[in-house]
Amino acid sequence: MRKTIVEMLKRAGNEFVSGESIAGELKISRTAVWKHIQKLREHGYEILSRERRGYKLKDAPDLLLPSEIQIGLDTQIVGVEMHYEPSVDSTNRVAKALAYHGAKDGTIVVAEEQTGGKGRRERNFYSPRGKGIWFSVILRPKILPKDAPQLTLMTAVAVAEAMNRFKLKPEIKWPNDLLFDGRKIVGILTEMTGEIGRITYVVVGVGINVNFRREDFPEEIRPVAASLSEMSGEELSRVQILRAVLEEFDKLYREVNANGFDEILKRWRKYNVTLGKNIRVVSAIEDGENFEGKAVDIDKDGALIVETPEGLRTVYAGDVSIR
Amino acid sequence: MRKTIVEMLKRAGNEFVSGESIAGELKISRTAVWKHIQKLREHGYEILSRERRGYKLKDAPDLLLPSEIQIGLDTQIVGVEMHYEPSVDSTNRVAKALAYHGAKDGTIVVAEEQTGGKGRRERNFYSPRGKGIWFSVILRPKILPKDAPQLTLMTAVAVAEAMNRFKLKPEIKWPNDLLFDGRKIVGILTEMTGEIGRITYVVVGVGINVNFRREDFPEEIRPVAASLSEMSGEELSRVQILRAVLEEFDKLYREVNANGFDEILKRWRKYNVTLGKNIRVVSAIEDGENFEGKAVDIDKDGALIVETPEGLRTVYAGDVSIR
Repeated sequence: MRKTIVEMLKRAGNEFVSGESIAGELKISRTAVWKHIQKLREHGYEILSRERRGYKLKDAPDLLLPSEIQIGLDTQIVGVEMHYEPSVDSTNRVAKALAYHGAKDGTIVVAEEQTGGKGRRERNFYSPRGKGIWFSVILRPKILPKDAPQLTLMTAVAVAEAMNRFKLKPEIKWPNDLLFDGRKIVGILTEMTGEIGRITYVVVGVGINVNFRREDFPEEIRPVAASLSEMSGEELSRVQILRAVLEEFDKLYREVNANGFDEILKRWRKYNVTLGKNIRVVSAIEDGENFEGKAVDIDKDGALIVETPEGLRTVYAGDVSIR
Repeated sequence: MRKTIVEMLKRAGNEFVSGESIAGELKISRTAVWKHIQKLREHGYEILSRERRGYKLKDAPDLLLPSEIQIGLDTQIVGVEMHYEPSVDSTNRVAKALAYHGAKDGTIVVAEEQTGGKGRRERNFYSPRGKGIWFSVILRPKILPKDAPQLTLMTAVAVAEAMNRFKLKPEIKWPNDLLFDGRKIVGILTEMTGEIGRITYVVVGVGINVNFRREDFPEEIRPVAASLSEMSGEELSRVQILRAVLEEFDKLYREVNANGFDEILKRWRKYNVTLGKNIRVVSAIEDGENFEGKAVDIDKDGALIVETPEGLRTVYAGDVSIR
C-alpha cells in the first residue's frame, strides 16, 4: 500500500498528487491515506502537503527500505520477499534463522548496519551505517551440495555485472573478492546447510563498500579496502546499486537452475585477475600450510588449479595473494 | 559419581558393597551415598540394600543411560560427551542445536524413542521405545565439505564392524543402508552445515533396529525392515551394541582425520552388495529422473559409477534398488 503511494508520488515528480486520487487508486479513505503518509514520514520520506493540492515527494531517504528497493525491481525470485533491519548483528544469522523456519527461495535480508558482520573463517567484516550495502540472500537451488561453491563465483559475477551498469570495472580475485586497484570493495560469505546429496538452503551474504572515503575505513583495513565511490569519483545511490545487484543475481541464479554453471564460469574468467599470475596460497584446511605457484586454471567445480614445482595442485578453499 | 557407584556394584557381582567403602572411595558421606543410590533407583537400577551389609545391584535397566554406556567405553572422541533424552522428536535436531551452540567434536545425543525421527529426504523413520538405538553424533572433522558424503560411508562401515563383534554379517547397499536378507536394519542420515571450503559441523544420525520382532514393525514397513535380533535369533543388549558402535566409529573417525578416506572405501567395498549388480537409480536431484544400469564402482568421493547403454554415469545421491 505504502509502496504504491511512494510510486504515485515519484511518478508525479514535481507535481502535487491529491489525497483524493490516491484514495481512489487504493480504494481507501482519505484519512487512511493521511495515516500512510505519516508512516512514510516516520521512515524518512520528506513529503510536503498542501491543502486542496495534496502531497508531493520532496526527498526520499537514502535508506534500503523494501518500499524503495522494490519499486521497479525487475526480478522473478531474488528480493520478491524482503526483510529489513535498521541494525542487526549479522544479516547471515537472520537469514539462516528465516531459512530454518521455511523462508522462500530468493528471500533477502537487508540491514543499514551490522554490529557483528562476519566474513569467511569468522573474520570481522566492517559494516557501518549508511556507507555500504549489507545483505543476505536465501537460496534453495536445484543443485548438489558439491556444486554449492560455484554459487560464490556466481555472486561475484552478479555484483561485477551490476557494477558494469554504473561504468565501474571491478576485477575478481579467486574465488570471490572484488577488487579495485588491488583493494577489496566487496566481501561474500556463502553458508550451506544440507543432507548428503541434498541442499536444504544456502545463505549468501554480500557486503559492498559504497560511499566510504579513505578516512572512513578503520586504519587497520585502510591499506586493503576500497569503495565504489572511490572507483567512480562520486557518491552513489545505494538503492540503485542494490537493485542492480539483485537483478543481475536473479538472472544468473535462474541461469544456474536451468543450465548449470558453464555460463557463470565463462563470465568469471572474463573478470578474473588470478589466472596466469604467480600466487601464494594459504590453505583453508591444513592449518598454516601454504605454497607458491602459478594459477593456471579453474576446474569445472570452480576450484583453482595451481602449477607448482611438484606438479599441479587443486585448491578448493583458501586465501590467495598475487605476487 | 553415580557412574563410579554403578561400576563398584557391578565389580562386586553377587556380593554386597558397604556404604562405608563407597563413601571412602568417593570421599563423600554415607548419607550422600544413600542419596545417589536413590537417584540410580529412579533411573531404573534395581539396587538391594541390607543393614550392615550395604548395597547390591540386582538388575541394571536396559536403558541407554550415559552411566551405562560410558562404563568401559574405549573411545577418545566419540561419546566422551553424551546427552540423554528419554523421549525426543529427533536426535539430529537436538544435536544440530547443540552443535550450533558449540558442542564438542564427538558429542552424542541418545534417545530411548524419537517421536518425529527422520530419514533422508524427510522420510519418517520409525523409532519406538526400547526396540532400537537412536542416536546422533556431532562431528567437526578436518576435511573439506566436498568430502563429507564419505562420512556416511564411514558410518555404515563402523556399524557393520560393530555388528561383526556380535558375529553378525550385514551387507551395505550404496550408499549407507545396512541390510539383512535384503531388508533394512540400520538407517543413517548425515547433515552438514558449513561455509564454502569449511565444515562448521556435521551431524550423523543413526537408527539401529535391535530387538524388533516381525510383528513389532508397522505393516507398511514390514516387508522392507529387519532387526539385529532377527539376524541373531536372540535378543541383544542395546547398551553393548551402542558401545561397540561408538568404539568402531571413534576408530574410523580418527583414521579419517589422520589419513583420509582410503581405508574406509576399502572396507566399504568388502561389505557392499551393490557393485557388480544391475540396479535401478532414482536420482535425488532431478525429480523423478530414474534409470537402470550396472553398478561398476565407487569413485574416490564415494559416488556410485553406473554403466548404462548411454555410457558411464556418476550418482552422487539417490535411491538404488538392486534388480
